[in-house]
Amino acid sequence: MPNADQAFAKGGPAVRIADEWLRQILQLLYRRRNQTRSQIIEATGLNAASVSHALRYLLNRGVLLKVGDYQAHSGRRREVLALNAEAGYFVALDLEGDRVRFALTNFLGDVRYRWEEPLQFRQPLSPRTVVEGIRKVVREIGGDLHSRVLAAGVSYPGRLDAEGRLSAVNLGWKKIPLVQVLKEAFPWPLFLEQDKHTSIVAESWLGAAQKYSNALFLIAEGGIGLGIMVDGKPLTGARAFSGEIGHCKFFPDAEDVCNCGQKGCLEAIASGVNIVRQYAERIGTELGSLRLGDVLALARQQDPAARAVIERAGRALGTALSNAISLLNPEIVILGGDLIGAEDVLLPIIWDQIQRQTLPEALRGVRMAVSGLGLDIRLKGAASLAFRNMLYDPALLQVISAPVLQPAPEALA
Amino acid sequence: MPNADQAFAKGGPAVRIADEWLRQILQLLYRRRNQTRSQIIEATGLNAASVSHALRYLLNRGVLLKVGDYQAHSGRRREVLALNAEAGYFVALDLEGDRVRFALTNFLGDVRYRWEEPLQFRQPLSPRTVVEGIRKVVREIGGDLHSRVLAAGVSYPGRLDAEGRLSAVNLGWKKIPLVQVLKEAFPWPLFLEQDKHTSIVAESWLGAAQKYSNALFLIAEGGIGLGIMVDGKPLTGARAFSGEIGHCKFFPDAEDVCNCGQKGCLEAIASGVNIVRQYAERIGTELGSLRLGDVLALARQQDPAARAVIERAGRALGTALSNAISLLNPEIVILGGDLIGAEDVLLPIIWDQIQRQTLPEALRGVRMAVSGLGLDIRLKGAASLAFRNMLYDPALLQVISAPVLQPAPEALA
Repeated sequence: MPNADQAFAKGGPAVRIADEWLRQILQLLYRRRNQTRSQIIEATGLNAASVSHALRYLLNRGVLLKVGDYQAHSGRRREVLALNAEAGYFVALDLEGDRVRFALTNFLGDVRYRWEEPLQFRQPLSPRTVVEGIRKVVREIGGDLHSRVLAAGVSYPGRLDAEGRLSAVNLGWKKIPLVQVLKEAFPWPLFLEQDKHTSIVAESWLGAAQKYSNALFLIAEGGIGLGIMVDGKPLTGARAFSGEIGHCKFFPDAEDVCNCGQKGCLEAIASGVNIVRQYAERIGTELGSLRLGDVLALARQQDPAARAVIERAGRALGTALSNAISLLNPEIVILGGDLIGAEDVLLPIIWDQIQRQTLPEALRGVRMAVSGLGLDIRLKGAASLAFRNMLYDPALLQVISAPVLQPAPEALA
Repeated sequence: MPNADQAFAKGGPAVRIADEWLRQILQLLYRRRNQTRSQIIEATGLNAASVSHALRYLLNRGVLLKVGDYQAHSGRRREVLALNAEAGYFVALDLEGDRVRFALTNFLGDVRYRWEEPLQFRQPLSPRTVVEGIRKVVREIGGDLHSRVLAAGVSYPGRLDAEGRLSAVNLGWKKIPLVQVLKEAFPWPLFLEQDKHTSIVAESWLGAAQKYSNALFLIAEGGIGLGIMVDGKPLTGARAFSGEIGHCKFFPDAEDVCNCGQKGCLEAIASGVNIVRQYAERIGTELGSLRLGDVLALARQQDPAARAVIERAGRALGTALSNAISLLNPEIVILGGDLIGAEDVLLPIIWDQIQRQTLPEALRGVRMAVSGLGLDIRLKGAASLAFRNMLYDPALLQVISAPVLQPAPEALA
């Protein structure tokens, strides 16, 4: 909700710059990078005078730069504008996967410094490790740069309760007071979001969903979750419990027991570790050191047991996505996590199942894509999240539009 | 998106009233009816001065009335404010069910006049009937009142294509140019929405979902659809194709053939007509004049065939709702249409299935309710929709905040 008082207070007496104009222009330039003034007018729907005022305001404050000229066919030259990538920085933290990742990103979410802390396999992550990692980031940033970090974004797996305590199977965490730990260690405004939401924010701001307002991101990484983007915003639900597609049931007779204790959950049939489990059960062997990559390789060699397990997982994933498409009518569905490496084997089955099970009209115009953002996806999502939240925080919006930001020091180039 | 120019242009030079303030206050009073100034400040989060300015502005223009005093325990008396129910009127049209319903509602969505046109069973609705009904409404409204109708809201079944043509099995319509027909017959700004969306808007503004921002409405009326309310707004999807839960598949082996041509759709198992079909098949009889009510009555008498069919339908509906709850994390799930009369027989099975299949944490705090808005639900939803859209239409917002509205004529009381 725009803060109307803020909007009216800003700017001199002659021209008033509404926060909403700044927000729209900053968002547009974050997502589309280089734009001419007329492109900005067209994309935001703001009137030409408002855009001109806001652009001058942002240029004067160093948040916007003239980066070149565009020569139109008509012969007219138009200035190309872009955000100053060094107008401010964000700290991003990703608690997912086999390592904790820390990053310093520039204003546009590009990773400039990176720290990683590997996790011990099947050992719970110590909250102390997180705190020490953050302290290290804070120390290494140091000096002048320190004051130019605008906010911190955090991507977490599992679930935060109302008291800010995180429970996450992957981290071996049960009610660890994450928010308190982070608040004590981070000196900046803090924005947290679940991994599926940071993933879809990253895809929406920097990846395959950039052109779309309605997108789904199926994350299969330990558990299975669905990031849902509606009208350009992540759908988190009433109590931040949306996208629990991993615990939906599509095969009523399935006996597969899930982590959650129930039977027949999508996750119990189609997550990487459960694909491996089913393969081991079929050939009557121990799990041992068998990994998802091994089962995928066997499926590529037409091994019947591996193919049967992959087929079952693909049908379950396809049914799940068909139903999510029918409910949410997205423009694009992006697959991430373990599904990236399994694309050649799994995607044809998933797509076939989606086509069989979805009304043709409901599927019209729906694109499928595999995430191309790599291991940084959640770091980028956390930084984008911090950027977006900053736009809606009057105090932070004030900071970035204040004339305190200098060009980047050489050290960062 | 607030229109910033509009916001700045409104009001005199001393005090500027932002559209956004008016919008928030009008929405609040529409939904909660009587409110004191301090309740309005608390609920909107606007500052006291903004609220005072906006209230005075609306009172001066007759949109708001002082309806009484509230005596606080502290002894202080506070004025109670409410919208002037006769500040403007809406025309509502509901194309669903066994009759076309036309209504004139007051500013608050209460039905003041009503016209109905019964549909011939299994005979397609003639677009001419719709036009004639509208002409009749327009004629009967007449005179002074005519100029005080602000907008028209329409609830339709089936689907509109990009050219505004409606296809709806219930009406026997295939690509009938509904929007063109309506535009020629209605002299007012026109807002259309699908039945599942008008239903959930009605529940949200006037019914069981009034206190909630995230709600689901399962409509079973001919077809089965899901109205989805996220953060107070209906989720319509990228191409207005959301909520197609009726064509989701939860029983992979089901052979039931759906209207859509596919097998195993929820609708083919759990819609009223398909419950009747399955019962007739089980006992080896013709469909004949058998109705849903007959099968429900038999189930109440413990007839085994009727109970088996109801059990299967309930399990399918429960699985569908469990999955929708897992994806969308609503605060309330409301059942409507045929499910209202089947509440005693079906709801225990649906609820049992939801509890079996949903993560307990995902189900925490989720309420179930049966719609209490009766046959007028979609008329009220269409009127609420028109009211809500009006708030976001600068020209219409100007009309309602202009000092042209008079108290209602006696004829309407």
